[in-house]
This record gives sequence, C-alpha cells and structure tokens, in this order.
Amino acid sequence: MSGFAPSVYNSPTMKVADLGEFGVIDRLANLIRSRRKKDADAFGFRLLVDAGDDAAAWLGPNATHLFTTDTMVDGVHFTTAHSGWRDVGWKAMAANVSDVAAMGGLPLYALVTLGLPKDFGTRAIDSLYAGMLDLAEECRFSLIGGDLVRSPVIFITVALVGATGETPLRRDEAVPGDHVAVTGCLGSPAAGLELLRRGAEAAGPDAATLVQAHRRPSPHLSQGRALAGAGIKAAMDVSDGLTDDLSKLCRASGVSARVDAHRVPVDPALKRAFPHSWRDLALTGGEDYVLLFTAHPKVMEGVLPQLPHPAAVIGEIRDGEPGRVSVCDAEGNELPSAGGGWDHYR
Amino acid sequence: MSGFAPSVYNSPTMKVADLGEFGVIDRLANLIRSRRKKDADAFGFRLLVDAGDDAAAWLGPNATHLFTTDTMVDGVHFTTAHSGWRDVGWKAMAANVSDVAAMGGLPLYALVTLGLPKDFGTRAIDSLYAGMLDLAEECRFSLIGGDLVRSPVIFITVALVGATGETPLRRDEAVPGDHVAVTGCLGSPAAGLELLRRGAEAAGPDAATLVQAHRRPSPHLSQGRALAGAGIKAAMDVSDGLTDDLSKLCRASGVSARVDAHRVPVDPALKRAFPHSWRDLALTGGEDYVLLFTAHPKVMEGVLPQLPHPAAVIGEIRDGEPGRVSVCDAEGNELPSAGGGWDHYR
Repeated sequence: MSGFAPSVYNSPTMKVADLGEFGVIDRLANLIRSRRKKDADAFGFRLLVDAGDDAAAWLGPNATHLFTTDTMVDGVHFTTAHSGWRDVGWKAMAANVSDVAAMGGLPLYALVTLGLPKDFGTRAIDSLYAGMLDLAEECRFSLIGGDLVRSPVIFITVALVGATGETPLRRDEAVPGDHVAVTGCLGSPAAGLELLRRGAEAAGPDAATLVQAHRRPSPHLSQGRALAGAGIKAAMDVSDGLTDDLSKLCRASGVSARVDAHRVPVDPALKRAFPHSWRDLALTGGEDYVLLFTAHPKVMEGVLPQLPHPAAVIGEIRDGEPGRVSVCDAEGNELPSAGGGWDHYR
Repeated sequence: MSGFAPSVYNSPTMKVADLGEFGVIDRLANLIRSRRKKDADAFGFRLLVDAGDDAAAWLGPNATHLFTTDTMVDGVHFTTAHSGWRDVGWKAMAANVSDVAAMGGLPLYALVTLGLPKDFGTRAIDSLYAGMLDLAEECRFSLIGGDLVRSPVIFITVALVGATGETPLRRDEAVPGDHVAVTGCLGSPAAGLELLRRGAEAAGPDAATLVQAHRRPSPHLSQGRALAGAGIKAAMDVSDGLTDDLSKLCRASGVSARVDAHRVPVDPALKRAFPHSWRDLALTGGEDYVLLFTAHPKVMEGVLPQLPHPAAVIGEIRDGEPGRVSVCDAEGNELPSAGGGWDHYR
C-alpha cells in the first residue's frame, strides 16, 4: 500500500487523484492478494506472476500462460485530432502486445471491448478493427471476440492471452550490480505526438519518422523472446516513460538505479527535430514500447549480441531507496529530475 | 453480416444506433474471421469456439480454455441510485462468470479494468473490489490484476479466463425437435430493479427477495458443469431477456423456437409483487443469469434429474426462420410479441 495507512486511504474524502494511478493500483493489488484463496488454481494451473507486473502468468502443463489488459480512453489516452481510427486501433492493441513481449511471450488470443456512443459511425468501427487486425496479422495472433457497449465516452479495452515456453520476465528480479539496458531507441513517439500537437506533421522526413513512431509503435516481441530464452529474469516495457518505468521496476525489486543519460539510444531524427529537448523526450516521453531489462554484467555481455536489433546498456542497478532513479551526465554528475511520466490522475 | 450489404454498412452516415448492438457485433465477428490466419495457434492450442458465443474457447493439452469479457457503464448498465458499489462489483463480475457457466466451465483468473474520474473516492473503489472478491471467493477463482484508467464516465470491464474438461456448450448446436429448458426462475432481477425504481425496496419479504435477485445474481456454475458433463451441446446464459437470448441461440443454430409461456418458471414472490406483469418480466426482463439449453427430448429427460437445482422444459426448437421465437399460452395460441430485450443502442 506504499505509505498510506488504511484509515487514511479510507477517509471519506480521499479521491483517486490524491493517491494517483499507481498508488491505487498498489492498494488494490494488496487487497486482492489478501483475500486470495490457495485453492483457486485448478486443471493443473498454478499462478506464477500475480498482480503488479506487465501481465499475470500461470503455469500450465506445456506452457506458461500470460494474461493482460489495457485501455485507451478518448481525450485521455488518444485523440483523433492526431491519429486516424486505424492507428488508434493499432495502438490500443500494441500496448497489450507489448505487455506480453515484456514477459518474454507470444500473443495468442485477444478480446476487444468498444465503448461507443449511439452516433458513432460504423465506418470508424471498421477502421478501428482494421488497425487491430493489422497488428494481429503482423504478430500472428487472433481476435476471437469481445463486447460492444453504449458509453457517452469512447473507450477501447483489449484483453490478451499469450504464452511462453520460458520463465516469464518479471519486474521484481533486478539486483544491485545488474546493468540496465533497453532494446531500442527512446523518445521518438513522444516527439511525434509533440509535432502533431504543433500541426507540423508534414515537415520533412524526420517529422514523418517521428509521427510514424507515435502512430504505429511496434511491440518488441522477438526481443522479449530472445531475452527470456537467454535467461534474463528482470524486464518490463517502457510505456509511461523511461525513468518512470525504471522506477517501477526498481520499486518492485527493492532497489535503486542510475541512468547515464548520454547512453540512452535515440533516433538521429529525434536529435535533429528536437535539438534542445530530445534528452527529456527520451527519458520521460512514454509510449516507447521498447523493453527495459537488467542482468549481471557478464550475462548482459553475452545477451546483447543475441538480440535481433541493437540494444544498449544505459545504467546500473544499485542498493538504495527502492524506486529511486538518478540520471547522470557523461561526467557522472546527477541531473535534476526530469519529472514527467504518465500518471493520468496527477 | 446479417442483412447489410458492405456498401450500406460503410455509408458515411451509418451509425451504431442504426444497426444496433447485435448488428454491429455480427459485422465485426465476420470481419475478424475473414482476416484470421490459420497459423495463429501456437503452443499446441487450437481455437474451438470463435467470436459470437458467450465465451471464446481453445483446446489445450489437458483442458479447454474459455475467455470472455463484459463491461458495465455508469448510467447505461447500472446506477448507484439502486445499488451500492459492492453490489455493482459483484454484478460486473457475475456477468462474466455466467458466460463461463454457459460454456460448462469453471472461472479461473480475472483481470479488472476500472475507468474512473479523478474525484472518485477510494472508499468506493474498495467497495467495488470487495463485491468482486465476494464472488471470487464464492466461486473460487482469482483476481490477478487489471488496469485503472482516468475516464469522465465510470466503467468496469472484467476479462475472465476459465476452463472445462468437457466439450464447451455452444449457441449453434440446437436442432429442430430439441426441447428448450432453463436452469431456474426468470424475471426476479428485472422485478427487483423495477421496485427500486419505484422506491419500494423495503416493502416486505417479496420485495426483499426480488431486490436481492437484482443486486446479487448467482451464476449457474454447477448447472453448467452438470449440463456439459451430461452431454448437452447447446446452451447460453440469459442476460438480455429470455425471448431475446433464445432468439440469438436460434439464429446461431439456424432454427426457430416456440416458448410455452405458462411453463416458464417464476418465483412466487414475483407473481405476488407483479400480478399483472410477471409474465412479461419473466420473458423479457434480463439479467437473469440462468442457463438456457436445448436437447433431444430423450436426452433432456435423463438430464433434468441430474441438475443440482430444479430446471424446467419451456418449449421446443423448430424448423423455420432462423432466430424467430413464438410465445404461446397454455391453449397453444401465439401471444403478441412482448418486445423488449436489452439492446442498449436501440
């Protein structure tokens, strides 16, 4: 429950916004674990990864099952001022597939819930589904049903089941001395969104690259599989911003971390388009959907060449206040916190 | 796609409300099947039941997995004017558990998504979860995570994975000559809601019985298991009203049905509290969460005594216009359609 006594939490005036998204999620994870029955498993399944990771996981007879859900709400997580419905569909699905990638798994079956007002056009529904099916084809999983409900605000919820033959990657396995690495460049999707906000979409090839990164992020499935196959234990995906998500991984593992800002990989297009703010975008931008992972330096050395795309070591896990992430420049001086992260309640 | 040419469906002015919830769902089920890749299955799983049933199902090595999702939106599917948050939590979960019951399965693992505004109270969140956990304890499954998103309108989405060792019950297995039966009384939840709307909650034991049926419906899990174990093939749960749901089962199976209104079982409390409208409530009320099933008369005769609670034969499957349901009185005269059903878009 991370710092709130039940009596405070239960005061009649305490609101979601007071605790923030992640404060409430922590609270609920503890609540459901406290009422968990030991005999809930059946059919030979056994719960492996509980609430609080990218996906839940249970062990079956020939594979570990993964189960995740993610929602996008109009005006909170997306706006059609910046993306067409087909891109919105892709992204709603990509956020879920990325959660499965972060566990080292493959997506298998998805259910889609659309909350739509009465006057929502059927062509837009088709476009939403087309975007989701684009990703399903690319990543070889199946949409197998869902739900359609009337709602005054548009929302899209995906529930996704996946599987892995390896031990799932987890957030709570980082240990002091581990190196921290990422499977790809950071900051481009946030930069693309910023360009769209400025109405600068069509301003040359760099802008096109960044806008595409925002509209059609590709979950790092092959990277996640390679990490799990190589014996990596600690990983998560970067959806709320690098330092914010690294902080969550550290909190789950009870450790601190240092990030060397100059080692964080970015696309050259990002540096050119945002010569002053590219570093902040890379550290805190969000919706990157690359994987963040940690491993003993020796293990890391062996893993990096096995990855299908270049990955980069960007820092180190340390003893210290759980969840604290310090960001340093090339000379080792700590930079002021960039803040940020995507707690939509704060 | 049930009657709409693609060109009509895709007209720029066609809205969800023009097609209705079930028209759009049909359309989307066809869309996702048309883009389905044969090689989407992996880890030895094989898709058994596709979009359009109570739950999707795939065959694994030692059990068939079931996967369903259901959503409740504030002001559309519930109002806290009539139920406390704990009851809302119970019902949001019960709708999903009932879908698994309707396939003959047991619920195993649930993910919960809450869409909540910033000023939503944390005590209400606890109550919502308490109601969901009440049902999880009673039905022995586990909440294992979920998502919390900011939303201007409150909604609750549950995604539930279950399993069965039997062949899943399906909507498309009814054949002419089958008897139609239900696993319990109908109409009480709708009557309870009507009493709450009138502000008559506290008016005696009958009202209390009906209001409780509305607030805390019990999914028919043991009944579903017994049906699947006894070799029943065709079933679904009654959530949108008896005649409406029987029509869906008939449409999926390409058959018609006759319901004998006088054979539909109702609680004596319903007849006493609604002496004039109890039959309409039983035929069209909705949120009953009993199971509707069909079988050859000989099979039906053997199954009924095996069920843990009294079930009743209420009609017959016939050749005829797919989806047509006629309702007859005790003399065999067809009654005018009661209309109703819960398409929230129409």
